[in-house]
Amino acid sequence: MSLIVMKFGGSSVGTTERMGRVAQRIIEKKLQGDRVVVVVSAMGDTTDDLIDKANEINDNPPSREMDMLLTTGEQISVALLSMAIHKLGHEAKSYTGWQAGIVTEDVHAKARISDISPDRVFAALNQGSIVIVAGFQGMTESGEITTLGRGGSDTTAVALAAAIKADVCEIYTDVDGIYSTDPRIVKCARKLNVISYDEMLELAHLGAAVLHPRAVEYAKHNKVNLVVRSSFTHNEGTLVREDAEMEQGVVVRGIAFDKNVARISVLGVEDLPGVLAKMFGALANQGIDVDIIVQSGVLDGKADFSFTVSLADRGRAIDVLAGIKNEVPYRETTYEEGLVKVSIVGAGMVSNPGVAAKMFEAISNVGVSIKLVSTSEIKVSCVISAEPVHDVVRALHTAYGLDTAETAFVGGPQDRR
Amino acid sequence: MSLIVMKFGGSSVGTTERMGRVAQRIIEKKLQGDRVVVVVSAMGDTTDDLIDKANEINDNPPSREMDMLLTTGEQISVALLSMAIHKLGHEAKSYTGWQAGIVTEDVHAKARISDISPDRVFAALNQGSIVIVAGFQGMTESGEITTLGRGGSDTTAVALAAAIKADVCEIYTDVDGIYSTDPRIVKCARKLNVISYDEMLELAHLGAAVLHPRAVEYAKHNKVNLVVRSSFTHNEGTLVREDAEMEQGVVVRGIAFDKNVARISVLGVEDLPGVLAKMFGALANQGIDVDIIVQSGVLDGKADFSFTVSLADRGRAIDVLAGIKNEVPYRETTYEEGLVKVSIVGAGMVSNPGVAAKMFEAISNVGVSIKLVSTSEIKVSCVISAEPVHDVVRALHTAYGLDTAETAFVGGPQDRR
Repeated sequence: MSLIVMKFGGSSVGTTERMGRVAQRIIEKKLQGDRVVVVVSAMGDTTDDLIDKANEINDNPPSREMDMLLTTGEQISVALLSMAIHKLGHEAKSYTGWQAGIVTEDVHAKARISDISPDRVFAALNQGSIVIVAGFQGMTESGEITTLGRGGSDTTAVALAAAIKADVCEIYTDVDGIYSTDPRIVKCARKLNVISYDEMLELAHLGAAVLHPRAVEYAKHNKVNLVVRSSFTHNEGTLVREDAEMEQGVVVRGIAFDKNVARISVLGVEDLPGVLAKMFGALANQGIDVDIIVQSGVLDGKADFSFTVSLADRGRAIDVLAGIKNEVPYRETTYEEGLVKVSIVGAGMVSNPGVAAKMFEAISNVGVSIKLVSTSEIKVSCVISAEPVHDVVRALHTAYGLDTAETAFVGGPQDRR
Repeated sequence: MSLIVMKFGGSSVGTTERMGRVAQRIIEKKLQGDRVVVVVSAMGDTTDDLIDKANEINDNPPSREMDMLLTTGEQISVALLSMAIHKLGHEAKSYTGWQAGIVTEDVHAKARISDISPDRVFAALNQGSIVIVAGFQGMTESGEITTLGRGGSDTTAVALAAAIKADVCEIYTDVDGIYSTDPRIVKCARKLNVISYDEMLELAHLGAAVLHPRAVEYAKHNKVNLVVRSSFTHNEGTLVREDAEMEQGVVVRGIAFDKNVARISVLGVEDLPGVLAKMFGALANQGIDVDIIVQSGVLDGKADFSFTVSLADRGRAIDVLAGIKNEVPYRETTYEEGLVKVSIVGAGMVSNPGVAAKMFEAISNVGVSIKLVSTSEIKVSCVISAEPVHDVVRALHTAYGLDTAETAFVGGPQDRR
């Protein structure tokens, strides 16, 4: 008998009919003899509809009141899911975040969970009930209703799993696991059976819609076993856990790529103390995330910088740079779009020399030139032109031996969207 | 500086635009220097929509889960209304029922308020904030979310007013007060400036959509001054309070009528011990409300009974009687539709003999015969044919001196719907 947390996202419960299928899925687990705690998001477009309504009334609503408003979305979900389970003849009880004992910092819109007192969850489990908890929400010590921000329901599930010492936290989604790369592009992309927290974080772009990085970090910190699996099939899914065992010869676990990249270069920057801090501080203040940063050598007291930002931030980034030209004198800015960042990820990389060299070689063999490079202990990223990216990903998939199925291939590209 | 509770129903906040008008109204009160607590119902059709969704999933959902579901309606209202007030530059804080300290019995769907701990309400008022509380809901001692059933938001408003010792509890609605009779029928129907709790309860049919009887009883018990007034005009409204002063010559305060009446007669009932208890017990068990009951004298050990029920219950009532014919032997049942119950209501009636006689005379002068009569200390009701009812109401309005305006007539029939 296991203690299991099952988390279902908004699209899994988007209609009353889907709600019924999820109820069935939960009951199957219960009938296996497991004790089950379910975390649910708001149904389909509920949250967006509520935000639209708020904006009709106030284009800048107080975040306290937004939290009051948005938390109703998950409360509706848990009540309806409980009704669906009752309809199928099983006992279930729904709880809001605060009823489940989820205490957060005194911050609205993006509170962090500070404590969980799962007394009522255990009491209901001990009565043989399925427990359904509203994701994304909690309460401050002083009784204010809060939300956890993006990825909130994943975080609720992981935090609850840690608090009740669940054997596993299953994240149900519309894909059946984490893949070695995007199966729409590489036909023989393999579903990974197991992956480490760190690798999962680096592969976020392959799993961003599936599993929020914040929840992965929480799971890593609290050693919660996470499983990503499909709510439509019974395939096994991908287990995310600490120190995933090294599989024979597996150095690179997966290949991620991000098509949403722009390069900005700032040329002829005067090499004064603090110019870098000023430049990137100004960008951060405008909420612009800078990814890879490269500085070429200083010549005649002038340096050239290049960095990448998401495509959507490109215009704003250049405006910010123009606005600080007095403080950070430079000659000119240039930019380049139509780029992609390809990354190889694997915890085994650190102890295997030559992994990066093999990447550069594979890319060069496809006749593609590398514009920027960035490395970490478990990742190498290269920025290249967008248009040959599929060839590059396929070449890397082959070069690192990922085409060889480690297990029977289950699920196909049609499951992924 | 007064402490005021303002209650707005679902139609007053049915759209985001109306929400803005209500916000304006609340701010006016605040700018007069009053401290304001607002109670709001769910917007327009929200509750019905949620019920429909629940029934799609489960035709007999557990009442605990219905309460979880339905309380989101008011939570949405309070959050949006708070945003609307902020938009107009004033401070407001929304609270769910449990946040406002509303404790109920441990019953779902129709809980009664057992206690209110308004600490947070006072704290927010002391910070200069407008306080907005979700109507219709509360929490049990053990932290379960409950609803108060029909008329719940009115009851929340009155109970909060009692708990915080508010100077007045204003019920905003789409009519501008309680009238001496239906102004659509009697042109010179007067809006009453003041009325007692008991009279208000008897006049429920003139104010049923305006003020729930349960809230009136709660107000009476706790001596809360209630005002019924329009959310669309600034007219003064009707004050409902204990022992409304006798106005000179005002014996009858108002004339109510109920077109929704059917008479059932049970003829030749064997006059055995307990037959009445069996007959009306069986009707009550089926949830059929019996209003006026008349027994004619016993002849040869057989009695005739007549009673009134609402038109909708007529068929079921006759079925119930057929079902108990073995226990309660009788010769036959007959029924009559197309009836109406006309009532005169006034606390001064008890000390004024001849009030009922004047009613019978006025009705007879219109050439109408009376089928059933029922009296209480502050009311006389007559059941008559439906079709002359408007003439009868007009005749009674004149006979009891109600045509004479006690104040300038404000508002017109067009305000009433």
